[in-house]
Amino acid sequence: MTGKRKVVGVLGGMGPEATVDFMAKVIARTPGETDQDHIHMLVDHNPTVPNRQDAILGDGEDPGPAMAAMARRLETAGADFLVMPCNTAYVFEQSVIDAVDIPLVSIIDETIAALPDDCDAVGLLATDGCLKADVYQKALRRQGIRAIEPTDGDMAVLMQTVYAIKAGDTGPAVAETMRKLALALVEDGAGAVIAGCTEIPLVLDQTMLDVPLLSSTDILAQKTVQLALSE
Amino acid sequence: MTGKRKVVGVLGGMGPEATVDFMAKVIARTPGETDQDHIHMLVDHNPTVPNRQDAILGDGEDPGPAMAAMARRLETAGADFLVMPCNTAYVFEQSVIDAVDIPLVSIIDETIAALPDDCDAVGLLATDGCLKADVYQKALRRQGIRAIEPTDGDMAVLMQTVYAIKAGDTGPAVAETMRKLALALVEDGAGAVIAGCTEIPLVLDQTMLDVPLLSSTDILAQKTVQLALSE
Repeated sequence: MTGKRKVVGVLGGMGPEATVDFMAKVIARTPGETDQDHIHMLVDHNPTVPNRQDAILGDGEDPGPAMAAMARRLETAGADFLVMPCNTAYVFEQSVIDAVDIPLVSIIDETIAALPDDCDAVGLLATDGCLKADVYQKALRRQGIRAIEPTDGDMAVLMQTVYAIKAGDTGPAVAETMRKLALALVEDGAGAVIAGCTEIPLVLDQTMLDVPLLSSTDILAQKTVQLALSE
Repeated sequence: MTGKRKVVGVLGGMGPEATVDFMAKVIARTPGETDQDHIHMLVDHNPTVPNRQDAILGDGEDPGPAMAAMARRLETAGADFLVMPCNTAYVFEQSVIDAVDIPLVSIIDETIAALPDDCDAVGLLATDGCLKADVYQKALRRQGIRAIEPTDGDMAVLMQTVYAIKAGDTGPAVAETMRKLALALVEDGAGAVIAGCTEIPLVLDQTMLDVPLLSSTDILAQKTVQLALSE
């Protein structure tokens, strides 16, 4: 059976713990008992890709060429399709798409596709770069769904919190800050919240919110397993 | 600074969760705050490598060729040195060493090197294949240290427990079983215990034992960080 499975290429390290969290979720969602039941992932865990926020906000090196090089390396090594466990990286997805002949699964499109049908306003917890690039909002507008973004003050707190998580702090204080940021979106009318940054599910989970929480990491992991096991 | 760092090639997937645990430990032990401070790891997370125990015990396919192919793929992709977060795989290390021109760090040698100086008897928690292959015992004999192995009955329990962990069960019952297996070695005279299988540290940690516990995963992670950051 394993011969028919697809090999997953992972552009990782954006950030490091988010990549490990993604891999753990792929493993947990793969049916089977033995090592050999699992999915073959080629992971380029390359934390040296230039900062995506800085590039979007105008004062940093373009991460596109580094991402394209990773994609080519993964294709050469045998990947059948690519994923990136980083929402903000998708702002630069064209660099990856142009570099290789294998498909890139979009964490943005898959997360939007997983929204509940009856939801007409969605809260977005994502980096300032990701929100400025309008990737989630554009996808939501196409479906007539209103995007609710953090206030400027909350956005500053969110970015501090994301960088704290990247620095290794996933403790209860950080989790509570993230929960409050999500609750503020719910108070502003969000019927669901998208954790649209792969650092967020490291501290925030569904048990902490009364509205549906869409973890972009979990949704990408689920899609990855489904594609890898399909013939 | 990142330009001088070495790229780590990881022969992974043996087993899947042990690889993720190893990566998380490399990340946790790397000094720094931002993504860009971290180490570049190329990971061939290939759970389809034939079962190492079965090959050693005489009734399974040789995993050497699959491991050699992984090593070549990682060298081609740019790895400067190789690690394998799997003790039993080191029984087949010659296949890897012969396949590439870059060094392979030995989890066995590094773990032995980390033993306390005053220890004259060491308990070995490792798979039956690993113990049958005599890799840890041989290294201990060279240093005049006595190896204490689980009884046949305990060995059967240990293998069931390792396979339960590989199947995703890292709950308290499994952890308690592993602790009892370690305690039996201490009762037999072990002044330290080697967790010589990368599944074991997923459930057993130093807080659960009164004698030093050497986690082969932690020791390999520490060495990996040290080598990657060296010039």
